[in-house]
Amino acid sequence: MSDKQGISPTDATTANFLFSQPVRVGVLGFGGLGQAAARVLAPKREMLWVAAADQKGYAYDSAGLNPDTCIAAYQAQGSVGYVEPIGTLSNHSILELIEKAPVDGYFLALPNLPNTFMASVIQQFIQAGWQGVLVDALKRTSAVEQLLALQNELQAAGITYMTGCGATPGLLTAAATLAAQSYAEIHQVKITFGVGIANWEAYRATIREDIAHLPGYDVDRARSMSDAEVEALLDRTDGILHLENMEHADDVMLELAGICPRERVTVGGVVDTRNPKKPLSTNVQVTGRTFEGKISTHTFTLGDETSMAANVCGPAFGYLKAGVSLHQRGMYGLFTAAEVMPKFVK
Amino acid sequence: MSDKQGISPTDATTANFLFSQPVRVGVLGFGGLGQAAARVLAPKREMLWVAAADQKGYAYDSAGLNPDTCIAAYQAQGSVGYVEPIGTLSNHSILELIEKAPVDGYFLALPNLPNTFMASVIQQFIQAGWQGVLVDALKRTSAVEQLLALQNELQAAGITYMTGCGATPGLLTAAATLAAQSYAEIHQVKITFGVGIANWEAYRATIREDIAHLPGYDVDRARSMSDAEVEALLDRTDGILHLENMEHADDVMLELAGICPRERVTVGGVVDTRNPKKPLSTNVQVTGRTFEGKISTHTFTLGDETSMAANVCGPAFGYLKAGVSLHQRGMYGLFTAAEVMPKFVK
Repeated sequence: MSDKQGISPTDATTANFLFSQPVRVGVLGFGGLGQAAARVLAPKREMLWVAAADQKGYAYDSAGLNPDTCIAAYQAQGSVGYVEPIGTLSNHSILELIEKAPVDGYFLALPNLPNTFMASVIQQFIQAGWQGVLVDALKRTSAVEQLLALQNELQAAGITYMTGCGATPGLLTAAATLAAQSYAEIHQVKITFGVGIANWEAYRATIREDIAHLPGYDVDRARSMSDAEVEALLDRTDGILHLENMEHADDVMLELAGICPRERVTVGGVVDTRNPKKPLSTNVQVTGRTFEGKISTHTFTLGDETSMAANVCGPAFGYLKAGVSLHQRGMYGLFTAAEVMPKFVK
Repeated sequence: MSDKQGISPTDATTANFLFSQPVRVGVLGFGGLGQAAARVLAPKREMLWVAAADQKGYAYDSAGLNPDTCIAAYQAQGSVGYVEPIGTLSNHSILELIEKAPVDGYFLALPNLPNTFMASVIQQFIQAGWQGVLVDALKRTSAVEQLLALQNELQAAGITYMTGCGATPGLLTAAATLAAQSYAEIHQVKITFGVGIANWEAYRATIREDIAHLPGYDVDRARSMSDAEVEALLDRTDGILHLENMEHADDVMLELAGICPRERVTVGGVVDTRNPKKPLSTNVQVTGRTFEGKISTHTFTLGDETSMAANVCGPAFGYLKAGVSLHQRGMYGLFTAAEVMPKFVK
């Protein structure tokens, strides 16, 4: 099939995007999100999870990694580097993995904090001369802005980088982009999320990122909190975090996509750290004016039974698949979830 | 800007897709949908409406057509060909317009019936050696399947063809594609639309298409009905049309995008031909199983104040803009609304 072709009429029932080989996927970071990513990938036929790295080591197997084995090693010993015989302990785990392993695309399931961390990891890919697809689920506007500054470098390096490709930003940003199409002008994009997790300790980094959005907290303060301090804070709030006017990259992504100025985009939500049931249904509301002058609101609402992990990892791999398609066509550089339609991964 | 580039870091606030010249747009068909398209285009800075054609004639002005003048001529005399001095009466209006007018992209606001009509129009574009972007808002599965058969011809001709790019299929199909990302497997995509129009006579072709979906009717019978017969039918139903299990191309488009087999996609709705208020809120529900084994449903709901015209024409021009981007990159052939993210047109 030509790489400039749309749908193949001869193979219409197998979609226009047919992989002869599964996409070889790596996951960087192996906390709650990275482990969920491994579980999401496991049953896929179009993708093969071959690589993982955390702070202390990495694992690579061209035949595919076993999620159970990797998660057990990480939870018992603190690193996938302990997985025998395919694990390697290293203080430069990401760089060594990049240089050693043939991988088509990585999901960067790394902590969002410190805010410069993602950009520094990407520099390692560029400096290693690695070519392929990178996908992140970054949240903060300022983090995505750091990536915007890397656009030319990424393009020159032959990397197709998909940023803001989780749930929000990501799935909900893309839904807002679609919803905007009915309107002549967009007045407001309002994202409200509900997250319920049984136990905050499964998502230590994510919860600290949320705390950083609370009044009186910032990224440095949240990051420096001990587990006991986080626990004490959650005790005072009955495990609930109310978040308003969060710095979320949906704003810059929708501005870049030409939908509306970033000031019209708001993100807030409620996180229950002690109950897997969501305290409210995550949704995005897009309000605008139609060409006839009517004001109306489209709403995209996520089912309550879908977890944060499902809503982040699913879209992330959908964008990774779309990114592979772009990369094969020689389209490098930075793309956001608001620009590209994710592809369903089977 | 390179045509293989993502976001430009030097011009981030003006979006990554900057037209130095407005896209020159034509509208084929000038019934209710074509006239609405002219109104939608009028205030756009990124697009210039330069051409229109109906059965009896066409109008072209490189400086831009005036919606009021064209609509008045069509309503008073039956064709935009009567618009002085830029109108031309012709029995081969589409072919003459294609050959004469420099146009970057056409919105095919043509009747869906007869079912082979769209494909026959496209043959005229191919035979004329025209290159550019075509967008349709086709509804029926069988009509889109005819286009699938033209994939190779369209590609060889240098035409980027975006099919099924109205409201449904179109906006709702794309929303279903996004929603699917959270799931490991899709069980059902259920589209339910509500349409309210003050007066069926403003949408004679569209209402006949709807009638063709009713039990006991088919495309030929609906098309051959006189206005009086349509009126009599609507009198019997108090102006309401209940439509179930409609043949709608959302099914083939979602199958092609790899979301689910077409049998899992259902489309139905309620059309009130005597009240502009929608009888129910148009929505798409996507039910699936997450990687953890949970069954859930995402829902995308359109605001009741948005008209059919806004939800069809807005997305259509968003896909046209996206199509121009593909065409500039040499990506020709057939694409569906489920594959490409529409771009917001300012």
